Amino acid sequence: MSKANLVTPRTLAGFMELLPRDQLIFERIRAALEETYALYGFYPLDTPVLEHAEILFAKAGGETEKQVYRFMKGDTDLAMRFDLTVPLAKYVAKNAGELSFPFRRYQIGKVYRGERAQKGRFREFYQSDIDIIGDGELGLANDAEIPAIIDTLLRKLGLDEFVIRINNRKILSGFFTLLGLGDQIENVLRTVDKIDKIGADKVREELTDTFAVPAEAAARITDFIALKGSNAEIIAALREMAGEDELFNLGIDELETVCAGILAFGVPEDHFRIDLSIARGLDYYTGTVYETTLLRHPEIGSVCSGGRYDNLAGFYTERRLPGVGMSIGLTRLFYILNEMDELGRAMDAPADVLVIPMTDDMTPAIAVAAQLRKEGIRTQIYMEKKKFKVKIGYADKLHMPFALFLGEDEIRDGKVTVKNMVSGEQTTDTVSAMVPMIREAIAAKKAEPIIVM
Amino acid sequence: MSKANLVTPRTLAGFMELLPRDQLIFERIRAALEETYALYGFYPLDTPVLEHAEILFAKAGGETEKQVYRFMKGDTDLAMRFDLTVPLAKYVAKNAGELSFPFRRYQIGKVYRGERAQKGRFREFYQSDIDIIGDGELGLANDAEIPAIIDTLLRKLGLDEFVIRINNRKILSGFFTLLGLGDQIENVLRTVDKIDKIGADKVREELTDTFAVPAEAAARITDFIALKGSNAEIIAALREMAGEDELFNLGIDELETVCAGILAFGVPEDHFRIDLSIARGLDYYTGTVYETTLLRHPEIGSVCSGGRYDNLAGFYTERRLPGVGMSIGLTRLFYILNEMDELGRAMDAPADVLVIPMTDDMTPAIAVAAQLRKEGIRTQIYMEKKKFKVKIGYADKLHMPFALFLGEDEIRDGKVTVKNMVSGEQTTDTVSAMVPMIREAIAAKKAEPIIVM
Repeated sequence: MSKANLVTPRTLAGFMELLPRDQLIFERIRAALEETYALYGFYPLDTPVLEHAEILFAKAGGETEKQVYRFMKGDTDLAMRFDLTVPLAKYVAKNAGELSFPFRRYQIGKVYRGERAQKGRFREFYQSDIDIIGDGELGLANDAEIPAIIDTLLRKLGLDEFVIRINNRKILSGFFTLLGLGDQIENVLRTVDKIDKIGADKVREELTDTFAVPAEAAARITDFIALKGSNAEIIAALREMAGEDELFNLGIDELETVCAGILAFGVPEDHFRIDLSIARGLDYYTGTVYETTLLRHPEIGSVCSGGRYDNLAGFYTERRLPGVGMSIGLTRLFYILNEMDELGRAMDAPADVLVIPMTDDMTPAIAVAAQLRKEGIRTQIYMEKKKFKVKIGYADKLHMPFALFLGEDEIRDGKVTVKNMVSGEQTTDTVSAMVPMIREAIAAKKAEPIIVM
Repeated sequence: MSKANLVTPRTLAGFMELLPRDQLIFERIRAALEETYALYGFYPLDTPVLEHAEILFAKAGGETEKQVYRFMKGDTDLAMRFDLTVPLAKYVAKNAGELSFPFRRYQIGKVYRGERAQKGRFREFYQSDIDIIGDGELGLANDAEIPAIIDTLLRKLGLDEFVIRINNRKILSGFFTLLGLGDQIENVLRTVDKIDKIGADKVREELTDTFAVPAEAAARITDFIALKGSNAEIIAALREMAGEDELFNLGIDELETVCAGILAFGVPEDHFRIDLSIARGLDYYTGTVYETTLLRHPEIGSVCSGGRYDNLAGFYTERRLPGVGMSIGLTRLFYILNEMDELGRAMDAPADVLVIPMTDDMTPAIAVAAQLRKEGIRTQIYMEKKKFKVKIGYADKLHMPFALFLGEDEIRDGKVTVKNMVSGEQTTDTVSAMVPMIREAIAAKKAEPIIVM
């Protein structure tokens, strides 16, 4: 094809497409999530990227709807999913008769939002969701298990300095009702939710100016959500305010039970704390809410968020399906950690060993590779006819931990020469004698944290 | 919401959405593929589902183009990918400067074709592709490695009765040229490709009637592709025909080299054979071609197919990028195996152990679950306040291999009671004493084949 007719290869703006080494690290994170969810007994779920627009828009509205990729194919009005919650609701409503409750599922999948292109904003991105859905009811112990899962998976990723911030929407709603703002709860919640971004002054301003909240009530709100202390102190302070509003009281009871549960689940005290400013703007949360902050990078916002909702699928079924769950914006998280150079690079080679044949006949090299693979060692054979320098350069460029040479001497002696590509050290011995050393080195690499912070 | 306003939950026709138990088995297959590809040193790759239409249609035409989901968003002409080859071509052309060659990648991802809805035909389906891309050149040893990978992965899935059928397009093209059909090679290849479906008579008919191939030439073609014998016998027969056409001769040399290589890679002789009828309709193959037949189910057609191509990305770059690869239509394969009830059901529970607390205080149950999870045992706690019958019924419905009871006696004695849900056997002992037994049972389940045929 002549140069003039070539189509310039390019990827859509806002669509992450990683280079191979980064992709390997992304996959490591994904695997850590999947393993954690499986350890807690969650089913994997996979739903279509495309749905009937009617299904996706049963609930959505306003901003979300504008951003959705929606189009006709023949007579069918189609849309690409913009989250994993709506597809879950459809799935559970559709298959309720076949599922056993509580239904626990995780889903790691791509979702689509045609937002304005902007650095760090993605139009196609992975969400990683877990949810526990009950049939009619769901015990509060589930609300305590979610932070335990967050704790397990963040530690698995190599993180230790984080805090899961917990609140209960009933407390906020009840408190606002006590202040006479019972008809404005959604607006107040959504404003309060911005406090980390805009600060207390602006929250008060928005409450008074936009929603006509009396100045005194607005001040009491920002004072309330700024309440500091240990979990026990905050619960005690809340108890002192209790009395008038049943929802408020119920919220305190729930929060206290959930905090005790989280401790029982073995989450260390410094990994979670009550924070009355956590509101979660989404209107479907009705009880416990969570956000998770990386202490060294609070500026990136919550990395795992979620909460309890009364009814998952009210738009599709009369069956009441309460649930609790949490979500990770995986693509954004990966992007930020990569930009900040906080990703562990220990496992960024596609193979552990590159076998380099030094003779024309590759049969011995192939046999050695087969032997290594049987031992679970990821092995590639360099099969091109190139100079030695090119071959070893390839092992180097791909960050392969080991290169294995097989020349005439080695073949005659039934041995191989293994070079540690980091230390430069070379050893000649039988393959079987080499396996433990290679395995040990790989295990040490695997044990290195995926996120270094 | 009143019943009248409910949106009926439904999934688009032609979009696979599995129930939890089937999804677990699907994930097991996917994991087996990923592990195999990793063992051979392939990078994972993930590309966007959406691309500029211009990119996807640089090469496509006719039927494919009609089936594509294509739409405008603002000023942008978008299309959903219909295979993983075109995105790979774009990726390699775009990033050639950053990649090291040979570039080995696998990709397991969803692709989209708006075909007429039909039982067993999917509009959204997974493809699982591997490719090895060279820069300018790529050794023939790579053509021999692909069948070794197919062999490894099918065996990992539990299959043994299959045959990888191998041919070389140069032989077919050369032979057709020898018959004076040098200007019709594509048409003849595409017709020959149908032989498994329509038989030799119809192939001859189509050749003579549609493409005006002389009857004698058509007969020689169907005789040629029906040539039977051991690999050595077929090579010998081909050698006797050699002489006039250089491409034909080169094809024989390549086929012989590749067959010798496949043997060197340890693929048993009964798992591959030369079959001169394998043509692969796709016009980009230029050398070795593969198809894989399950001997007990030849009617489902090839389960892994692929081949060698001269130039991956000629529409995007002047750089010549030859490659070899193969593809599995994962969704269709899963669908068929499921319909035929050939899927192993050994690992279809979301957890290995269901911990059932028999006291109000769940703290001891939570501690036991934490201990099991530390041992890598997938554990769920039944946290709802239900009757015992409901709890144990849940373990049964979810096919959990073990239920673990924790009553007052057990808590007092620091023990647990474990019930094997299949045998009904119950044992009471400490958690540590139980772990090896549970592990062994799970390992035995994991060792059972994923596909039983």
